[in-house]
Amino acid sequence: MELAARSGTTVGLTAGDELVVTNTHGQQVVDTWALSASEASRFMSASHTCMRLGRLLIGEGDALLDNTRQPMLTLVRDTSPGDHDLLVPSCDAARYRELGVAGYHDSCHDNFFQALADAGLDAPPSVPQPLNLFMRVPIQPDGSFAIESPRARAGDLVRLRALQDLVVVLSACPQDVAPTNGEGRTPTGVEYDVVRG
Amino acid sequence: MELAARSGTTVGLTAGDELVVTNTHGQQVVDTWALSASEASRFMSASHTCMRLGRLLIGEGDALLDNTRQPMLTLVRDTSPGDHDLLVPSCDAARYRELGVAGYHDSCHDNFFQALADAGLDAPPSVPQPLNLFMRVPIQPDGSFAIESPRARAGDLVRLRALQDLVVVLSACPQDVAPTNGEGRTPTGVEYDVVRG
Repeated sequence: MELAARSGTTVGLTAGDELVVTNTHGQQVVDTWALSASEASRFMSASHTCMRLGRLLIGEGDALLDNTRQPMLTLVRDTSPGDHDLLVPSCDAARYRELGVAGYHDSCHDNFFQALADAGLDAPPSVPQPLNLFMRVPIQPDGSFAIESPRARAGDLVRLRALQDLVVVLSACPQDVAPTNGEGRTPTGVEYDVVRG
Repeated sequence: MELAARSGTTVGLTAGDELVVTNTHGQQVVDTWALSASEASRFMSASHTCMRLGRLLIGEGDALLDNTRQPMLTLVRDTSPGDHDLLVPSCDAARYRELGVAGYHDSCHDNFFQALADAGLDAPPSVPQPLNLFMRVPIQPDGSFAIESPRARAGDLVRLRALQDLVVVLSACPQDVAPTNGEGRTPTGVEYDVVRG
């Protein structure tokens, strides 16, 4: 299925299903969340995931944990160079104001809530820290970091296996001011597919 | 005031007030949260703070942002070596089970909820990512990290100025299995004081 540029969607997964997200055009960041289908206060947690792994980056075979340290998803395949940020929060109205945008700008924050509303699902009171697929945020030895143009190429994909019943939310990041989605600053759509387990 | 070893408390701050947390015995980690006094869904956010700073560590003069990117607190004074972790989630029942603890163990997770309940305050549905004062989690150039024995000495203090009306929650971390609170694995109390603005 196509996720249009700048938009969000929900994907319902049953334990054993796999979600494939393909970077159709390359260099497109996809903010990704997973919410428990059964418990409103459980969601995929970047900090619990990094703590378990002892590192800031995930790779094939790694589990993504929720905020009670239970595994929600496993990254079973990654053909990209492996940049999937777990530090940077979703873009939102405040971020675009900082960047000099006047008036409304699409954001991953708003896509998160809109996608859940469109599906008739309850949303948590605030946006959890996302897994930013394909987002390049190299960390320097002094702890400083900055967002750089992605290295993901057209056709690169990640494949995530659900270990619980989940609602995944995807947002094709609409960032067109900073180089989050490449130096061309042109957000694109991506492809996503579910392989039922 | 004394915050007893292994326990939590709330501290109400009005904009302009300053909170001083003193590591009475040294090497004690203090999980710290700030919640908006007026809006239930606004809380101090490690990820938004790091994103604004472009680095993983805070220093004197830095603002701690909430999840809408508004400054909540400023770190106005820090006499410690400057290790204040923003990556590691609060210890909780699941973490102590991982470490081999059978039965109940005090945790910063439980202290957070208990402190708010003791004060008759509403709690958010899940524990926000804390600012872990005095916690040493050096990050290696490859992105790996581990919890090490703190370098904070007896008498080291941090001083935080409130920029909004806040409820701060403090937990004297009860970790006694890992070296979070020093190789001696002996949690202690700390001192905290409010200087009204």
